[in-house]
Amino acid sequence: MRIYDIIHKKRNGEELTDEEIRFFVAESVGSKIKDYQITALLMAVCFNGMTERETATLTMEMAKSGDMVDLSEIEGYTVDKHSTGGVGDKTTLIVTPIVASLGGKVAKMSGRGLGHTGGTVDKLESIEGFRTTLSGDEFLNQVNKIGLCVVGQSGDLAPADKKFYALRNDTATVDCIPLIASSIMSKKLAAGSKGIVLDVKTGSGAFMKSVEESEQLAEAMVKIGKAAGRDTVAVITNMDIPLGNAVGNSLEVIEAVETLKGNGAEDLTTVCVELASNMLTLVTGRDKDACTELAKDAIADGSALEKLKEMVREQGGNPEWIADTALFPKAKHKCEIKAESDGYIEHMDAEKIGVASLMLGAGRNTKEDELDFSAGIILQAKTGDKVIGGETIATLYANDESKFESAVQKFNEAIEFSSEPVEKQKLIYSVIR
Amino acid sequence: MRIYDIIHKKRNGEELTDEEIRFFVAESVGSKIKDYQITALLMAVCFNGMTERETATLTMEMAKSGDMVDLSEIEGYTVDKHSTGGVGDKTTLIVTPIVASLGGKVAKMSGRGLGHTGGTVDKLESIEGFRTTLSGDEFLNQVNKIGLCVVGQSGDLAPADKKFYALRNDTATVDCIPLIASSIMSKKLAAGSKGIVLDVKTGSGAFMKSVEESEQLAEAMVKIGKAAGRDTVAVITNMDIPLGNAVGNSLEVIEAVETLKGNGAEDLTTVCVELASNMLTLVTGRDKDACTELAKDAIADGSALEKLKEMVREQGGNPEWIADTALFPKAKHKCEIKAESDGYIEHMDAEKIGVASLMLGAGRNTKEDELDFSAGIILQAKTGDKVIGGETIATLYANDESKFESAVQKFNEAIEFSSEPVEKQKLIYSVIR
Repeated sequence: MRIYDIIHKKRNGEELTDEEIRFFVAESVGSKIKDYQITALLMAVCFNGMTERETATLTMEMAKSGDMVDLSEIEGYTVDKHSTGGVGDKTTLIVTPIVASLGGKVAKMSGRGLGHTGGTVDKLESIEGFRTTLSGDEFLNQVNKIGLCVVGQSGDLAPADKKFYALRNDTATVDCIPLIASSIMSKKLAAGSKGIVLDVKTGSGAFMKSVEESEQLAEAMVKIGKAAGRDTVAVITNMDIPLGNAVGNSLEVIEAVETLKGNGAEDLTTVCVELASNMLTLVTGRDKDACTELAKDAIADGSALEKLKEMVREQGGNPEWIADTALFPKAKHKCEIKAESDGYIEHMDAEKIGVASLMLGAGRNTKEDELDFSAGIILQAKTGDKVIGGETIATLYANDESKFESAVQKFNEAIEFSSEPVEKQKLIYSVIR
Repeated sequence: MRIYDIIHKKRNGEELTDEEIRFFVAESVGSKIKDYQITALLMAVCFNGMTERETATLTMEMAKSGDMVDLSEIEGYTVDKHSTGGVGDKTTLIVTPIVASLGGKVAKMSGRGLGHTGGTVDKLESIEGFRTTLSGDEFLNQVNKIGLCVVGQSGDLAPADKKFYALRNDTATVDCIPLIASSIMSKKLAAGSKGIVLDVKTGSGAFMKSVEESEQLAEAMVKIGKAAGRDTVAVITNMDIPLGNAVGNSLEVIEAVETLKGNGAEDLTTVCVELASNMLTLVTGRDKDACTELAKDAIADGSALEKLKEMVREQGGNPEWIADTALFPKAKHKCEIKAESDGYIEHMDAEKIGVASLMLGAGRNTKEDELDFSAGIILQAKTGDKVIGGETIATLYANDESKFESAVQKFNEAIEFSSEPVEKQKLIYSVIR
């Protein structure tokens, strides 16, 4: 088998065999295929696409290119969740305790943030003492004990994806549905859970800017998951507006805790209940409405909050901070953004708000950047809200006062006002199973 | 300027600016752009094409990436010829003396053969003493003295093409019209002649298998030449059948000499007169019919043969071998192929005949292979000819008898017989100016 022939076939719009895809992935990871041949093939894939079978095989081979996490020692139904990333997305901190409190087994590996989207691991590390690096045994034992463990990615998960992604990032082949789908799903398949719920974000703060594209991606991922024998559901959710009111690490943990106490913002609560109930349909086999009730009850009766506290305690964090979020250190400086006149917020560019938060110290430009856990933004008003001239629409927090100037400018670029009332946006566009 | 953005633009089907193309070529040659980015861009070009302006700019930048031969010291009109390569293509040996004998200044660099197509430089080296490596001054002086010099490629001509071609060859992006056109024309522009006549071969022994593709390539090249201020003409000629009767180095030189003596095969003579007369229209400014007469006369009155002899003498070769081709060493062994029964030759795959000749020792599989100058094939019958059972249709020559077995097998694969008469193929499909 020769990589030349494989590139030639894909360039001509022909379908690759499973053997050809297997050869491509294995020999790429083994560095027997040159990087310049990998990028040529990936570019041809961008133009000629891949069939369902090709995409499923590619994904499985990418997953198998590294460690496959073995969750067979966990008793019960393992369920994972993945978000395509957004601004103010703290859903993992809310959804996973809900699901675990109702019997789901959540053995989750999460990422760190890079660019304008935050990472769950970073957020958790804003809790005093919280450990995101556990041994394999500690990880499995904790899931068996309390049903929930969230750690950073460890081991060598899908090295083929790492290689392909780095090359795609340099050659303008990132935005290609079969390649995005295989990249995300190869890591999810390697992570080992039986059930997978995908939160596919759409809008100005998401990688996918249109609902149509998001649905295409969601469908591709659900098909891959099913082909690999995993129960897979995708939910298309709004990321045109930041989710909830807090953007920034400890600010988001505090908001998550408030949401589990029943005091959450409506949009955040709705999206979390939707994700949790879809996970619960897989875990319990019950219908969606019943699962929605279960999820709401887990918030109302405090059992989900209790589960979060348990996880924090198990992973070395200080559970008092969850009971009383006033214990989180506060940023030294704040800066209020006020409405100039009466009107409505017509548009709020989520990506730009993410960048403003990054500028305040809440995010990373490069992997080496250190985070300022208490930096970030609290939104007092969001798209569609009526504002009165002089009213505070957002508060920016930072420990380094010099960061406000550029962050305020970026924040102001993100907001557009209107004198007319603005229609409410959808929160949940569709569910694909 | 970032290569990422250039790849992204081309992937999206947008037109690249001259500055972007300049940056791409210069930074590729300077190794500042990674090979894996070059191949991704070239693959995107295969899908989205290039406009006339983009192709012309790409070609000129590739030409300027290395030495640009300066022919300004040559008095008179400099004219070059290029063939896209074929089997039995000895036209340079015939056409350039015709043109030089009529006042054209031919300062030509030719290639060596690789694969199933032979190289003019190899053929010339089958003449005792012939030197294909001259200094720049020797080259220019000889053209000023006798109007004709054919040497091997020297200097650093179009290094961007060398780099791109090697990468394309490994990534299935060779067959792409703007990339083929820019590859050929970058070397022709760098070679410096004012007039360029392109012999674009079409059919089973050519790179371009269909007349339509050949015409597209021809049009692209003529446009590039004109955009660069060169008088450019392309002739689409038949390479479905080997040209003339001889395939192999000294065998082809002998056939070329015979053709200049007026005893050439009809197809070879016709194609050579067509190419020469197109070159002469550029040199003399006279109309095509007049130039055709001039070319025919140069054969009839022996002046073209005399010019070839002059060139051989000037370049250290033994002119007696031209006067008397019986002086060329003969291969030690021969093997005749006979028709099994009466019929017609329906098809003769030129590429396979080229490969059979290569197997006999007349060609190279790798750059390092040594040639057997007297090895090759003489065709006694060609496509369309009637044959009688037992009649010799071809004679294979080799100095190593062990080579006949596989070569005969390959030759037989190339030939298809029919009991019905076969229609004659066209020799000249069209002329594009």
